Amino acid sequence: MTGTVLVFGAGTPNGIGGAISARFAAVGHRVVVTGRTQEKIDQTAIAIRSVGGKADALACDVTKEADVNRVFKHVEEIGEPVASVIYNAGGNAPISFEDITSAQFEAFWQVGFMGGFHTAKRAMSVLARQGSGSMLFTGASASIRGKPNFAHFSAAKGALRNLAQALAREYGPRGVHVAHIVIDGVVDGERAQSLFGDNLKDLGTDGSLDPHAIAETFLMVHNQHRSAWTHELDLRPFKEVW
Amino acid sequence: MTGTVLVFGAGTPNGIGGAISARFAAVGHRVVVTGRTQEKIDQTAIAIRSVGGKADALACDVTKEADVNRVFKHVEEIGEPVASVIYNAGGNAPISFEDITSAQFEAFWQVGFMGGFHTAKRAMSVLARQGSGSMLFTGASASIRGKPNFAHFSAAKGALRNLAQALAREYGPRGVHVAHIVIDGVVDGERAQSLFGDNLKDLGTDGSLDPHAIAETFLMVHNQHRSAWTHELDLRPFKEVW
Amino acid sequence: MTGTVLVFGAGTPNGIGGAISARFAAVGHRVVVTGRTQEKIDQTAIAIRSVGGKADALACDVTKEADVNRVFKHVEEIGEPVASVIYNAGGNAPISFEDITSAQFEAFWQVGFMGGFHTAKRAMSVLARQGSGSMLFTGASASIRGKPNFAHFSAAKGALRNLAQALAREYGPRGVHVAHIVIDGVVDGERAQSLFGDNLKDLGTDGSLDPHAIAETFLMVHNQHRSAWTHELDLRPFKEVW
Amino acid sequence: MTGTVLVFGAGTPNGIGGAISARFAAVGHRVVVTGRTQEKIDQTAIAIRSVGGKADALACDVTKEADVNRVFKHVEEIGEPVASVIYNAGGNAPISFEDITSAQFEAFWQVGFMGGFHTAKRAMSVLARQGSGSMLFTGASASIRGKPNFAHFSAAKGALRNLAQALAREYGPRGVHVAHIVIDGVVDGERAQSLFGDNLKDLGTDGSLDPHAIAETFLMVHNQHRSAWTHELDLRPFKEVW
Repeated sequence: MTGTVLVFGAGTPNGIGGAISARFAAVGHRVVVTGRTQEKIDQTAIAIRSVGGKADALACDVTKEADVNRVFKHVEEIGEPVASVIYNAGGNAPISFEDITSAQFEAFWQVGFMGGFHTAKRAMSVLARQGSGSMLFTGASASIRGKPNFAHFSAAKGALRNLAQALAREYGPRGVHVAHIVIDGVVDGERAQSLFGDNLKDLGTDGSLDPHAIAETFLMVHNQHRSAWTHELDLRPFKEVW
Repeated sequence: MTGTVLVFGAGTPNGIGGAISARFAAVGHRVVVTGRTQEKIDQTAIAIRSVGGKADALACDVTKEADVNRVFKHVEEIGEPVASVIYNAGGNAPISFEDITSAQFEAFWQVGFMGGFHTAKRAMSVLARQGSGSMLFTGASASIRGKPNFAHFSAAKGALRNLAQALAREYGPRGVHVAHIVIDGVVDGERAQSLFGDNLKDLGTDGSLDPHAIAETFLMVHNQHRSAWTHELDLRPFKEVW
Repeated sequence: MTGTVLVFGAGTPNGIGGAISARFAAVGHRVVVTGRTQEKIDQTAIAIRSVGGKADALACDVTKEADVNRVFKHVEEIGEPVASVIYNAGGNAPISFEDITSAQFEAFWQVGFMGGFHTAKRAMSVLARQGSGSMLFTGASASIRGKPNFAHFSAAKGALRNLAQALAREYGPRGVHVAHIVIDGVVDGERAQSLFGDNLKDLGTDGSLDPHAIAETFLMVHNQHRSAWTHELDLRPFKEVW
Repeated sequence: MTGTVLVFGAGTPNGIGGAISARFAAVGHRVVVTGRTQEKIDQTAIAIRSVGGKADALACDVTKEADVNRVFKHVEEIGEPVASVIYNAGGNAPISFEDITSAQFEAFWQVGFMGGFHTAKRAMSVLARQGSGSMLFTGASASIRGKPNFAHFSAAKGALRNLAQALAREYGPRGVHVAHIVIDGVVDGERAQSLFGDNLKDLGTDGSLDPHAIAETFLMVHNQHRSAWTHELDLRPFKEVW
């Protein structure tokens, strides 16, 4: 399988972005791993290369158009078609609406949505010219409904979901597959391990989302034949009460 | 009936904001009419006063926190409780995702969403302290689904919808009624008359949304007893194919 | 205001159907109150007449086409236009999917959905001929999503919701207003009082849905101008966590 | 890979059920192919066996509990675990609400929903005992929204969707994966070829859903790890305007 895959938001080596990068690399794609911290994405790239995969690590702050453009420029220089662009960036933390400041709101908005906008601007341009390839967005249950103490996160995720839908309708007929994957539950990655270590144990075996299982579905959606594309699906652990 | 009503986005005298202002004034509320252009909101206020209503017209660019704060300061000086805060601002025009610039996107975002955020910050503070009152948001069919050539509008409206949901869940138990009214169809106001004059005629009698009929539903939602509040409803002309 | 209003599922005098009947009667409509048990609907009709309203009580098992037809025949004989037909019948009780029998499932289906189908068949015929009037369906949160131990109720309610949507799209352009009102929370009526007396108290003042508040919204939806009709709205107590 | 797969509604050899049967057989599952007409399902089974797969063809009218029970009895006799039960039965044809009779409605309901209920009753019992396996339901865009002239189909599909959701929530924690796959668009099978031959050509290459592409996604959902299960996804051709 050929074509480069760009993963935005792969700064946590054992998180979703890292697992997606590894999974696409395992089937032969060159993966461009991006994140804010060079040494973190280097870890992901090194791990991929250690098992024979092709990976480049490029530091990128998705909230800066220039950074996003630089990543796409790098991909252009590689000269291969782009197979998939994955937007997995986004921060999350509870803050009551009463307490949140405009500056905090703006920060969540920039990484939760505007980074996706900048990425999509470049991605759609490349993919529409090719007439093929996919762009996959990571969603959350807050994409679907506004949650108390998560107005900031829900707003950014709701906007991103509607962006993904608009792009799917605008670029689908041009051969570009845009999908939105709603992750509902705790993801068993570095972030959750440090934040809720004990809670993760309470969830039991497979009670939290395994990033590798999530990555499997991203790859499957990317591989769908264009006669039967999925635009949206949810992912949650079997035990999740929802 | 007592209490002040603030209407943001009432700059088109015969549009939704103007009709809402007039309707709430007709049942005795003092209405603070706001919009970017002083002379336009003056028209609305004058019309309300000419039939015995109480209306103040305050110029306000919702994208500027200072402007929004000034309106709330004025209301504070009036010294009466706040009955309702209505966020009806927002611009719309089709632009393909390929053509839209970051600056254009930002402009739609600021008025479509950020104005609502600034307004809600001040409104929730006042209403939660009172333990009563409503905040009503004007939505659109693009709030629910992303539309081709309307990625910018859909994103802002989707974010606003999720904000409204988060606020409803966060402030409902504190006595504040937050609702989101989805308007689906062409509104028969000044804007549509200038943009699609003939098309409006083609829609026939009652084939486009009458701002006064819309305003009636805003008032009804505001008047609901707290044992049975609506969070979301849709409004469309009887002929609308949807 | 003129025109007859038919209320199906008004067998609990202090329930939703009873409150709707009383509310429409209070603004001058003749109300035809139906339910399975004559003496229960008689109570509702007597109460309405005692305050000067017009009400007929007709026993009707909605699961029997002949019964439904008999009610419409009675209305035809009255000779006035039909203002509104309200379908509020439906039973509910938790049963695990493992335990439910085909016969039990069928019973919930008949009253939860098929009664609505029979009623709609007759109602649409009359209302489309008139080119006016409304049909209002009582929904529940289970209309929107399937709930554990309520597969039977969720299935019937989901079917009824989709029926209402199909009818709205098919008959709206012919002047018939079809709406679906989603009630989310405990209703403070006879049924809840006997089933969860103490729990109702725990919900506190206005913590459960007041049937009269619900009825107010049914009347408001019925009264909407055809240039701005609501198809669906939700109703829940201000304290409801949802 | 082991375990028996039961496919209900595989009576059209080149339709969705046939393609699903073939796909699961190709990865080693024994497939029990069912449908109303023995000779049609025989074709599917023969085709599977001709390429080395294991397939049994059992005539089954899903609207008859006894028929459904007979299929599960056969599976019990095979003695292997059940990997997946797929409910793909259901008929569709436009009929205006005005024209549809109770008998016609009932017929669509029986095959569109009740067959799924009977199948789920047996399937959940077996799968919950195992603590593993999946049940996959074929949905349609009418599952999500009621369509004019398809009230009957929309009602049955809406009920089936809510049943699937209730089952997912009730049986997920017991290790049973229940999913609902929404197919939106024309499926390029025998049925569409005879009904809209020319229209299919107009849709162009990949403009209608290829049953084999659909089957691929059914298999993928079945294969998901239980830490990240999908409950619902949509499938539509890249060109579909939706």
